[in-house]
Amino acid sequence: MAVEVMRRREVPTERMIARLKERFGDRVSTAAAVRDQHGKDESYHPIEAPDAVFFARSTEEVAEAVKLCAEYKVPVIPFGTGTSLEGHVAAREGGLSIDVSQMDQVLRVSPEDLDCTVQPGVTRKQLNEYLRDTGLFFPIDPGANASIGGMTATRASGTNAVRYGTMRDNVLSVTAVLADGRVIKTASRARKSSAGYDLTRLFVGSEGTLGVITEVTLKLYGIPEAISSAVCAFPTIAAAVDTVISTIQAGVPVARIELLDEVQINACNHYSKLDLKVAPTLFFEFHGTTAGVKEQAEMVASFAEDNGGEGFKWTSSAEERSKLWQARHDAYYAGLSLRPGSKGWATDVCVPISNLAEAINETKKDLETASMPVCLVGHVGDGNFHLCFILDPNKPEEFEEAAAINERMVKRALALDGTCTGEHGVGYGKIGFVEEEHGPATIGVMREIKRALDPHNLMNPGKVIRLGANH
Amino acid sequence: MAVEVMRRREVPTERMIARLKERFGDRVSTAAAVRDQHGKDESYHPIEAPDAVFFARSTEEVAEAVKLCAEYKVPVIPFGTGTSLEGHVAAREGGLSIDVSQMDQVLRVSPEDLDCTVQPGVTRKQLNEYLRDTGLFFPIDPGANASIGGMTATRASGTNAVRYGTMRDNVLSVTAVLADGRVIKTASRARKSSAGYDLTRLFVGSEGTLGVITEVTLKLYGIPEAISSAVCAFPTIAAAVDTVISTIQAGVPVARIELLDEVQINACNHYSKLDLKVAPTLFFEFHGTTAGVKEQAEMVASFAEDNGGEGFKWTSSAEERSKLWQARHDAYYAGLSLRPGSKGWATDVCVPISNLAEAINETKKDLETASMPVCLVGHVGDGNFHLCFILDPNKPEEFEEAAAINERMVKRALALDGTCTGEHGVGYGKIGFVEEEHGPATIGVMREIKRALDPHNLMNPGKVIRLGANH
Repeated sequence: MAVEVMRRREVPTERMIARLKERFGDRVSTAAAVRDQHGKDESYHPIEAPDAVFFARSTEEVAEAVKLCAEYKVPVIPFGTGTSLEGHVAAREGGLSIDVSQMDQVLRVSPEDLDCTVQPGVTRKQLNEYLRDTGLFFPIDPGANASIGGMTATRASGTNAVRYGTMRDNVLSVTAVLADGRVIKTASRARKSSAGYDLTRLFVGSEGTLGVITEVTLKLYGIPEAISSAVCAFPTIAAAVDTVISTIQAGVPVARIELLDEVQINACNHYSKLDLKVAPTLFFEFHGTTAGVKEQAEMVASFAEDNGGEGFKWTSSAEERSKLWQARHDAYYAGLSLRPGSKGWATDVCVPISNLAEAINETKKDLETASMPVCLVGHVGDGNFHLCFILDPNKPEEFEEAAAINERMVKRALALDGTCTGEHGVGYGKIGFVEEEHGPATIGVMREIKRALDPHNLMNPGKVIRLGANH
Repeated sequence: MAVEVMRRREVPTERMIARLKERFGDRVSTAAAVRDQHGKDESYHPIEAPDAVFFARSTEEVAEAVKLCAEYKVPVIPFGTGTSLEGHVAAREGGLSIDVSQMDQVLRVSPEDLDCTVQPGVTRKQLNEYLRDTGLFFPIDPGANASIGGMTATRASGTNAVRYGTMRDNVLSVTAVLADGRVIKTASRARKSSAGYDLTRLFVGSEGTLGVITEVTLKLYGIPEAISSAVCAFPTIAAAVDTVISTIQAGVPVARIELLDEVQINACNHYSKLDLKVAPTLFFEFHGTTAGVKEQAEMVASFAEDNGGEGFKWTSSAEERSKLWQARHDAYYAGLSLRPGSKGWATDVCVPISNLAEAINETKKDLETASMPVCLVGHVGDGNFHLCFILDPNKPEEFEEAAAINERMVKRALALDGTCTGEHGVGYGKIGFVEEEHGPATIGVMREIKRALDPHNLMNPGKVIRLGANH
């Protein structure tokens, strides 16, 4: 069907591109390499190249391009850094990729209000670099150095979410270009408001299907007076998870609790030159005052001990801490290094924390017979965990096997009152699971909203929800 | 126009009520006293009674009633405790009030997951009473003992929001009956999800205009090991606000920071038998470990001292603490007691904290010539403050004067990048200000969503947004 739609759209698309080139010159590219690069994210999904790529420099330019697309009924796919994981940027029906990476300005920082406004192409590392002298930081850290626009669009989170929340909680306002070129700003800079529908949260996680995000206002945080970290090995994953549950229940304001299974620890030991015991392991980070982080670490140490944790040690050394978290952030590459020439497939689910041990244990059992290495890591304070399949790109049967394991893991998460994706998003890779998770009535409402805001289904079509035959 | 619409709807309404009575007997009331009670909230807005009131007992019953209303094109107005402040429950076009106060069951509490699911008629105090033996609590506390359904619908917050967030942050999932009687559940119990549009947040704050909320899943929190409170008088409001800014910027995880101006303190002294200095005053509450709350209080004390605060004293005594916060929660009644027989009009705005001193100072200047007493209180950690006009109900000119002051305060907040309501909501009292705040493009999107989900404008019509002549 996608091919047919593309053909129907071919001629107008050519005309539209010609007009766009007239207006923006060489910032509109139809070079195969550029198109291919924009039709592919970091996932296992194949390239589906757009017809052209437009490198936009302002909200007004995005609006102009989107209006032209609307006139010719050409799809629009927003593009940040291309680090998504479920085929979010694939041009399933062709169309124009709007690359916002040149919209990379931090527009405003207000230290007094602990907030800032950025263009969507600013990356999370760039933002924290920019903030370096202010004593502030932005905590959301998906593995990749993603763009703030993309992180907003996918409702990203990462290791700090257990304390600082996800993009849902940290975006104060969004400026977006809608399907017909209208520009809206969803909210003021007030920390809270009861003034109308929460359009901010509607755009957070909408994956470009409702509009192109062109500005984001974010909450910031003061860099804590003290930061310490800890690491602890456990006899079983269940023991590690029980430690997490005790920590969360006791209200310890832990900044990070990461679980790495024995496969992942083994990979990290080799890749990041660590000498951790090869066992299910928790990494912790504590933020607060000097006395506060000590107190937090002591509480967690006692929970770990109750659950048979071995060798809990905490440190305030910035160097040791940095080594530990660098290893955590490199977990994906560490996994790949287990098998030279391999390709990774990362997937995630999230369940209520009381169901986490069951979800993980059943998944681990399922992995016992897997024919490829699979690493398990998790932001377990939120009940969120990931699998990374380490695949031989020349063995399609491995992809099929991974797909089956993934499907069983997702169905298990749904049966345990969880979600098919805690932070990676839907793209088109999880579009069927989203339907299963929400059921027809709730999906129906999502469709009605999509149709209301994008009646011709031009904004990143084929992502998040399927609209059916007549769109 | 409302009157015309009501006439047009009169005959079908009678038929619909007859059928509803057949089905539900005396749980459908057309008694004038019952109707009047349901056409009025706690605000200054006049009674606009619905044509009938239905006391529902389940989601299925609500769905049945809403379907009947859809068939006859009769408006539906959800009703919880009637404690809203902007005319939210007024039956502007007549119709059926669906009273959910008999849907008052706590359906499930999961201490391990720190969450629960309740019916919408459960009040916040009832929930905390229910949780008493679990060591958990639900922190959101608007002044009134509101229902969880109503708090969800208005995106309520209160004194604890600076630490625990608002209903936006604390609702995990909503079950709602839509305009055509369909029932949807917006999300799983997972703490975070990237699986599709955030319908939860769309229903939080929708004030019954998109559907009737029939179940709510909420985050809960462990009761802190230690709680202490403090009080401090300041030479000026600006000095108090500067103390707040320092506290927030330093990342002190304060649970409550409340500002009371000298008018309010005077009222509280009389009403609640306190002997506080009559001056702008901050009330604080600290939650944490024993060492933690001491540390927090010491940090805040030093900020207060820097800003000329006098007599900062903190206490862990539950009795003193309870007296202080009871006085804070009784602030509205204390205000009314300044003028026997008076009527209160409470209004709120919220601005970025760096603009709070200006917003409050200008408002205080405006109040200098007011012909009635006006109290100012604020959840200042969020940049949110309230005025309460103490009005003589027999002097319409006082209402006009209050309206003018309110309008100037709102316009000031909007000019300072704030919002026309931080927590009271829109109802119809602030519907014009919401248009001014968001502008036509953003309001247009809200209208499109409303039309998509409620094409005949039957769900609490005339609230949150105006749809224009052709709806």
